[in-house]
Amino acid sequence: MPPGPPRVVTLGLGPIGRAVTREIVGASDLKLVAAVDPAPNLVGRDLGDLLRDERAAGMRVLPHLDALGRRKADVAVHMAASRFGPALAHLKDLVQRRLSVVSTCEELIAAPYRWRRETAALDRAAREAGVSILATGINPGFLMDLLPAALTNVCVDVTSVRVTRHVDTSKRRAALQAKTGAGISLAEFRRRSREGTVGHVGLRDSLIFLMNHLPIEGEVGEETLRPIVAARRIRRGRTNIEKGHVAGVHQVVRAHDASGRSVAVFDLRMAYGLKNAHDEIVVRGDPPIRSRFEGGISGDRATVGAVLSTIRFASDAPPGFGT
Amino acid sequence: MPPGPPRVVTLGLGPIGRAVTREIVGASDLKLVAAVDPAPNLVGRDLGDLLRDERAAGMRVLPHLDALGRRKADVAVHMAASRFGPALAHLKDLVQRRLSVVSTCEELIAAPYRWRRETAALDRAAREAGVSILATGINPGFLMDLLPAALTNVCVDVTSVRVTRHVDTSKRRAALQAKTGAGISLAEFRRRSREGTVGHVGLRDSLIFLMNHLPIEGEVGEETLRPIVAARRIRRGRTNIEKGHVAGVHQVVRAHDASGRSVAVFDLRMAYGLKNAHDEIVVRGDPPIRSRFEGGISGDRATVGAVLSTIRFASDAPPGFGT
Repeated sequence: MPPGPPRVVTLGLGPIGRAVTREIVGASDLKLVAAVDPAPNLVGRDLGDLLRDERAAGMRVLPHLDALGRRKADVAVHMAASRFGPALAHLKDLVQRRLSVVSTCEELIAAPYRWRRETAALDRAAREAGVSILATGINPGFLMDLLPAALTNVCVDVTSVRVTRHVDTSKRRAALQAKTGAGISLAEFRRRSREGTVGHVGLRDSLIFLMNHLPIEGEVGEETLRPIVAARRIRRGRTNIEKGHVAGVHQVVRAHDASGRSVAVFDLRMAYGLKNAHDEIVVRGDPPIRSRFEGGISGDRATVGAVLSTIRFASDAPPGFGT
Repeated sequence: MPPGPPRVVTLGLGPIGRAVTREIVGASDLKLVAAVDPAPNLVGRDLGDLLRDERAAGMRVLPHLDALGRRKADVAVHMAASRFGPALAHLKDLVQRRLSVVSTCEELIAAPYRWRRETAALDRAAREAGVSILATGINPGFLMDLLPAALTNVCVDVTSVRVTRHVDTSKRRAALQAKTGAGISLAEFRRRSREGTVGHVGLRDSLIFLMNHLPIEGEVGEETLRPIVAARRIRRGRTNIEKGHVAGVHQVVRAHDASGRSVAVFDLRMAYGLKNAHDEIVVRGDPPIRSRFEGGISGDRATVGAVLSTIRFASDAPPGFGT
């Protein structure tokens, strides 16, 4: 990359995309070139208004990267897809434009194992273009995959890993409450569960990544997704959850060794008003390690932090696909 | 490096050196070529006896690398010096022999900041020889430097960092009790404190490393070292600590910003019978992060684990000096 602050374009202006764009505008070592989102209610909007930050005033939300014109960028921050399929199309386009990519796509963390051929082709294209593609995030991207992998790195031997993440969604943004089904009926939950439109995306991906970094063999099973039901009616502000309706989700995925022994368990609960919120990594091994984050790590802000660190890292990253 | 398991020679057969050598002997993906220690009571000893591991029987402890003869090695594990001065001489020699180095030298973690010229020369020599030099360990090397740096990587903003490590040395090896002055008088403690032969080596080095990886500026102050005094007589097995004598050490080092505000504190207590042993990293920032290791991480075993991971990593590491 040329000297000077990396020139950054952001793609996707959802809550995380807006927060990231705002931080880039405020960072002296990064330069925002443009923000892109094709949503009709966003295209053409003044970025200063949208971000509630005067320093971005005068910039308009672009509908597409083609609208960049002669403005040059070094890094694209891709925050426009959770699933690998649509992300792959975006990433191919960005690499063709010779932009390094930092992506929050949840399924990228395990892409080298789940979509070998497509990821290998993307890696080749990125190397040829001399750009890097870096997957980042908190979950996936840190708490249930990179961090346990880093902790077990100091173990002489690992027997099993258990990661628990219990999130009280009443303390997080409304989008997370909606994503975890807060307030919907059990029938609606079943329907959305079949559609794949409720719950956290990427839990199994995190475990696939982790198992590829642990010194133990294990096959990753299927993920279970169950509703957490409100034991009583909850009314708070705009929130209204009937007794017996959904307060949130409980997702579990395990890995077993050849003898059927459980070698890794991920237990994720995200529900409105959930008690005893925390994140915890428990490694049975030599030495044993137990790391507890009381109250949990705020996924939203930490994702913004992880994206910013990764943008800064992207300038020096070797070409190709990396996590 | 050539294909096949990395061929490893270990240098220094103290408690950690023996444990690491034993694990290498037992690892199918590593090959022990030789173990070196010039101590008169070790030279020529049968390694099977020394390690109490039959798989090493028939190998003799060598007095010096020159005794390797025609046996070829790829990686040297340097566990023979805590201080940078003697380590530098060893590392220069290893690089000249075209060996990649994994070193547990406590002062290496901050060497690029404390001994810039010497480290730069070592880095150049390693690049020219096509070998890597990797510093590793738990403290320094992980718990108070790399891990807090990794955690703050997901923060949008960092205000301050506090790392606490409280170790009950009655549950660790005798060498750690001796190193922390368990049982000596206060007069003896003062004398050994002046000599620099009591307490943990590398606390300030960890903080120098961390401050070079945090997004906040801060000057690292001097380290304080105080005795933790036994409130009553302790007798347990071979341990005998008189009331009023030393049970262990309390070491503190801080960093301050230009206005005098404390931006980082390391608080290390290691004492015989210390209550409430734990390791904790507290980050004030956006988001705040609090990670607690109840009972603490066993430094001895985790150091062995970190060394083994680093040996495996060394095969693919780029030439030059790295942490």
